[in-house]
Order: sequence, then C-alpha cells, then structure tokens
Amino acid sequence: MQTKNNTKPTILVTNDDGYFAPGLRKLIELMRPLGRVVVVAGEQSMSGMGHAITITTPLRLKTVTKSDDYEEYICNGTPVDCVKLGEQVVLRAKPDLLVSGINHGSNASINVIYSGTMAAVIEACIDDIPAIGYSLADWSHSADMRHVDNYVQNIARQVLEKGLPKGICLNVNIPPASTIPLRGIKICRQSHARWIEEFDSRQDPRGAEYHWLTGRFENDDRGEDTDQWALENNYVSVVPVQYDLTAFKAMDMLKTWNLNGKGN
Amino acid sequence: MQTKNNTKPTILVTNDDGYFAPGLRKLIELMRPLGRVVVVAGEQSMSGMGHAITITTPLRLKTVTKSDDYEEYICNGTPVDCVKLGEQVVLRAKPDLLVSGINHGSNASINVIYSGTMAAVIEACIDDIPAIGYSLADWSHSADMRHVDNYVQNIARQVLEKGLPKGICLNVNIPPASTIPLRGIKICRQSHARWIEEFDSRQDPRGAEYHWLTGRFENDDRGEDTDQWALENNYVSVVPVQYDLTAFKAMDMLKTWNLNGKGN
Repeated sequence: MQTKNNTKPTILVTNDDGYFAPGLRKLIELMRPLGRVVVVAGEQSMSGMGHAITITTPLRLKTVTKSDDYEEYICNGTPVDCVKLGEQVVLRAKPDLLVSGINHGSNASINVIYSGTMAAVIEACIDDIPAIGYSLADWSHSADMRHVDNYVQNIARQVLEKGLPKGICLNVNIPPASTIPLRGIKICRQSHARWIEEFDSRQDPRGAEYHWLTGRFENDDRGEDTDQWALENNYVSVVPVQYDLTAFKAMDMLKTWNLNGKGN
Repeated sequence: MQTKNNTKPTILVTNDDGYFAPGLRKLIELMRPLGRVVVVAGEQSMSGMGHAITITTPLRLKTVTKSDDYEEYICNGTPVDCVKLGEQVVLRAKPDLLVSGINHGSNASINVIYSGTMAAVIEACIDDIPAIGYSLADWSHSADMRHVDNYVQNIARQVLEKGLPKGICLNVNIPPASTIPLRGIKICRQSHARWIEEFDSRQDPRGAEYHWLTGRFENDDRGEDTDQWALENNYVSVVPVQYDLTAFKAMDMLKTWNLNGKGN
C-alpha cells in the first residue's frame, strides 16, 4: 500500500481517552493502510470534556515519532485543542480526513453532546475537513475490538472517496464484541434519550460534604430509526451530525411572541 | 412583588464566568422580581469549557446565602455541573426556568458550540427545563449593561408564561451599550461563521516551545436572518437552539453509500 507521499491522503487521528488508549492504537493500525497518518492525542484522558478548549494555560506539544508516512505527537490539551494544533502547528494545512476514537464507550444518543471524541470531529467539520468519530459500546479499557476492522475502514474509505456535505460529519457507534456476528451498518438519527443524574454524596475525613456525579441512561425513544435501537439490535449506527444548532421549526412560533414587550 | 413562596416560580441561575462576574450579578438582579432565585455558579471562570462535565474529581458545593426567596451556592465544577448540582442536590426538583449569563462576550454564531453559558442552557433543556442563555457582545469585565434590563426580563417573562417546545432552548445575544438605542429583538438562525485559529508560539525560559490559542472570527454568511447580522445591526438576537444534532437531510444520501463494503 506504499505509494508516493504526495499521492497518499493525510489522515489526522485523535481521541479523548489519551494517547495510551487501546482504542486509539487500533484506529491508528486501521488508518495506516489508507494514508499518511498523523496522530495528535492528549497526554491525559479527557472523557466528558465536551467541546472544551484551553485558553488560560499554554499548550505543549511533544514529538513521539516522525517519519514519512507516520507521525505521532502528544499534547496537554483537550480533543478540540488536538485538532487545532494538528491543523495549525503540526500540518500547517488541512488533512484530507480527521478520525477520532475508537472511544471506549458509546457516543450514541445524547452522549454526542458530552463527548470529547465527537467534539474533535465537530471541530474538524467546522473547518471543512471530512471527519468521523468511532466509538465502541464497551467501556472496558481492554475491550475486544477484533470485529471493528472492516466497518471502520470501509466508512473511512468511502468518506475519503466521496467527501461529506459541508457542515456534516459522522458519528459511528459499534456494538460490543459480545454481540457478534453484527448485522451490518444502519444510517440513523440521534435517539432522544438522556442521563438521569444521581449524585453520590459523601463526607470527607474532615466532615465536609462532596459529590460524585453518577447517573443512569434512560431511553424513552421507541423509534426503530435511532442509533440506540441500532446498537441494541446488533447494527453499527452511523448518524450524520451537524453543528448548526438552529431549531428552524421553532422560529415562526417565536415570531408570534411579544418579545419586545410592547403593550406590556 | 413578594408573593407566597409556593406561588412564585423557581429560577435557577448560573453562568460560565464565575460567581464574581458582574454579568451574573446583573442577571440575578433582573430575575429576583420574577421569582424565587437560586444561584449555583462556579468558583472559577469556565469560559470555553463547552459541554464539559466533571467525572474524575469530586464536586464541592458551598452555601453563600440562603433565605426564603434567594439562595446562592458556589461549586468547583463546570457550568453543566452547576445545573446538575442545582437540580439534584440543591433543589431536589426541577426549577421553572434556568437562565445562564449574562456572559461577558458574544455567544452568537459558532460560539454557541464552545460556550459554557450555552452548555448550561442545553443541559437544562435536555432535562425538559425551559432555559435561556444571555450574552452581551462586549468582552470587558466592566461592560456597561444598563441597556439590557427590559430585553432580559421580557424574554424570561414570556418563557415563564408560555414555556418552550420540548428539546428547544434560547440563545440570546445583546449588542454592546455603545450601539444604543437598540432596534428591538430579532428571531434568527445561527450564522455560519467560524474562528480562524492562529497559535502564538513562544519559547519558555528553558527553551521549550509552548502555544497560546488565539484566532480571529470570520463570517462569510451574508444572510440577513442570522444572529451575527442582527448584532451588527443593533438588534438583540434570539436563536432557538436544539440538541438533536442529526443532519436529517444527509440521511438519504448516506443510505446510497456502499458502507457495508459488499462488492468491494
């Protein structure tokens, strides 16, 4: 698969579990046959960081390895910082593709909002870079990923070949290995589910109270066209995601409101 | 405006600039005539935190003041943590309204994605609480806010009276005081603008390189129905925001792709 450097696509790879995560290593292995791979990953796990950026502390970038078709860097920032540094400081150009993951844990449904994995993808999308987030619905650090190869590579190949519409990126979620054989890929919408928060409140040795965030996932959305349904029925879910958050359907309703307060 | 406690709406107030920010104090002042106000704010500025949540360190909540119609708490978490703690630990119930801000700086256009102010609003929206984010397009800590009162209160009053459709919250941005008199409120869509990142790269006294994230805002969207246009033309912008990120228009196109790799 070695071709001349200037004919191979450049693939920027990041994640939110940190540079040491097996999911990142798997994604690197799967991307290397497809192009020149440049990895910029965080030195720490950044799960739950959403679309955070680092503006009050300076960012550091360490070179791990650098060759013609493979480069790897570690930084002290968030997944979104990794994308920005990858583009502006490492590549000084746009990559042909940004992939993020493979996340240890599902980013289907409402998880897309909290996900650092998907924040990196959305950041690339804002910059008009075709971008894909991959997540495995298994939180274990040592999760079995032997069933993901073809799905991950096929989706990346198609995006490299066809591109994606402006303003749209992909959120891919893969069922755990315990459910194989999988039934294929399903194009889905984001399920309307949510986390029900429950704080585990405790006292420290000095008697001061503190709270651990915990919660349980609740899915009231019974649709069979959702990412959550797909995962529960042994399909790989692919949701096209946009960063235009405008609720267009609500605009006309709001225009009927007396928001300027005249006559109040 | 004092009525019996059980007839007044409960308004949860937070922000992302920290409990000491003048914009938060202004919002508290404007909400107190409208109901029982409960403030849960961060002890630090959390600008640029996006939808981050705190899962690896315990959360602490300090009581600043507590009376029948006013309570104030400080926490060590993100804006999203403030909403979760406010609901689950402080109120142990849903408030009638969540307001966040008044942010020192615009959250119009793509800023909604990076904004801690709007992350708090979206978090409440996920929990079916009517929610409004207010931002002033002036980054100064000592920004003049004397022109915001009627706009902020009128929008909150209408939402308390009418509610908001499920899955939809409001992103309100107000032009700076230097532009008064304002021309009123405009219902808008999110402008398709973005930040062009530029890193300011330096060497520390030990010779190691570090990078400050900087950038300039670029708006190529010439539409006169956008929040950015409204701000630049002396209108208060109101964008209805949704957390369903599905790009429905791209689903049919993706279904024509050979994603399962058959025939490859």
